[in-house]
Amino acid sequence: MIRRRGTLFVVSAPSGAGKTTLCREVRQRLTDLAYSVSVTTRPPRPGEMDGVDFRFVGVPEFRAMRDRGELAEWATVHGNFYGTRARSLEDALAVGRDVLLDIDTQGAAQLRDRYPDAVLIFILAPSVKDLEQRLRERRSDAEVEIERRLVRAREEIVLWRRYDYLIVNRDVKEALVELESIIMAERCRVKRIDLTLPDLEGLN
Amino acid sequence: MIRRRGTLFVVSAPSGAGKTTLCREVRQRLTDLAYSVSVTTRPPRPGEMDGVDFRFVGVPEFRAMRDRGELAEWATVHGNFYGTRARSLEDALAVGRDVLLDIDTQGAAQLRDRYPDAVLIFILAPSVKDLEQRLRERRSDAEVEIERRLVRAREEIVLWRRYDYLIVNRDVKEALVELESIIMAERCRVKRIDLTLPDLEGLN
Repeated sequence: MIRRRGTLFVVSAPSGAGKTTLCREVRQRLTDLAYSVSVTTRPPRPGEMDGVDFRFVGVPEFRAMRDRGELAEWATVHGNFYGTRARSLEDALAVGRDVLLDIDTQGAAQLRDRYPDAVLIFILAPSVKDLEQRLRERRSDAEVEIERRLVRAREEIVLWRRYDYLIVNRDVKEALVELESIIMAERCRVKRIDLTLPDLEGLN
Repeated sequence: MIRRRGTLFVVSAPSGAGKTTLCREVRQRLTDLAYSVSVTTRPPRPGEMDGVDFRFVGVPEFRAMRDRGELAEWATVHGNFYGTRARSLEDALAVGRDVLLDIDTQGAAQLRDRYPDAVLIFILAPSVKDLEQRLRERRSDAEVEIERRLVRAREEIVLWRRYDYLIVNRDVKEALVELESIIMAERCRVKRIDLTLPDLEGLN
């Protein structure tokens, strides 16, 4: 029997690197991964569902949650608040479930401080040109929004060295294999395993 | 462009844990992995080829190689010498190729000292009973040899904590996925990557 504490996997990326798609796909493949629906004050995009994609709240409600210490991390991105409720996260880790969070770079830094064993994964588009193209293909954003995202992406790209792993998303399938491999490999890490082999224990 | 130094992957296991099969399979899947054929003084088993499975040498020749400092590690296992030639190993790492070595626990400890960045992977059978069964199924070994391997295996099992990763080989397919994941994940580790993104460099 191998016992493990749950591991917290935190995925960050500049806008347009493909983070949302990769996280969704890996959750479909590794169905035992827990996650925490983020709380946000940003308005829903077409098709997004409250409680599924995000928990959509007003600014006063967000501030109240934050001030009651209910958030493991929170950040302002493009003028909107985003946060993660600590409780659901910590409950899952305590019973040995791994948690995958899709979090911006500010939030990731807070999670690293709060959970030093967290595994931080950064996803990059192969180039800025490529990143711009992906943002334009998304179409849900206005030009001014695309420009704002590009400026921020350029600021964030340099942060990759603060992460444990880097995935360069040239090809979604390949990047997905890499993301899945990172999670599988971390599950085999000796420092995360509390091993009990009843058949062996008496022998040594 | 991502530049990396080659990474040295060292796989150890007690006899009967399935190490040889797993290493052979992963080499077939990840064909860019380099390896170094071990030098040994043990007699070839039926079907083993000189220069492919091992380089088979006499004791005086082995001692001469060792005394000339040509071996990155060497060990005595079941009364036979085993060793790895340093040159082929270091040439591969220098040009950025990853190397997978199948090495006993004594040799692994020497490689860890010599190459602190090496990734050490330990493979265990799920139980001693299972391990004994696998040794008997192998059939090439006499009873006294099986007993000797079991005694040694029991001594080695406790060494798993000195490794970076542990794979419990319940099912070969699953264990193979884990071994491959470890190699893929280590290739994404930020501490191993020297990143050059010409398209981004001018922007920050």
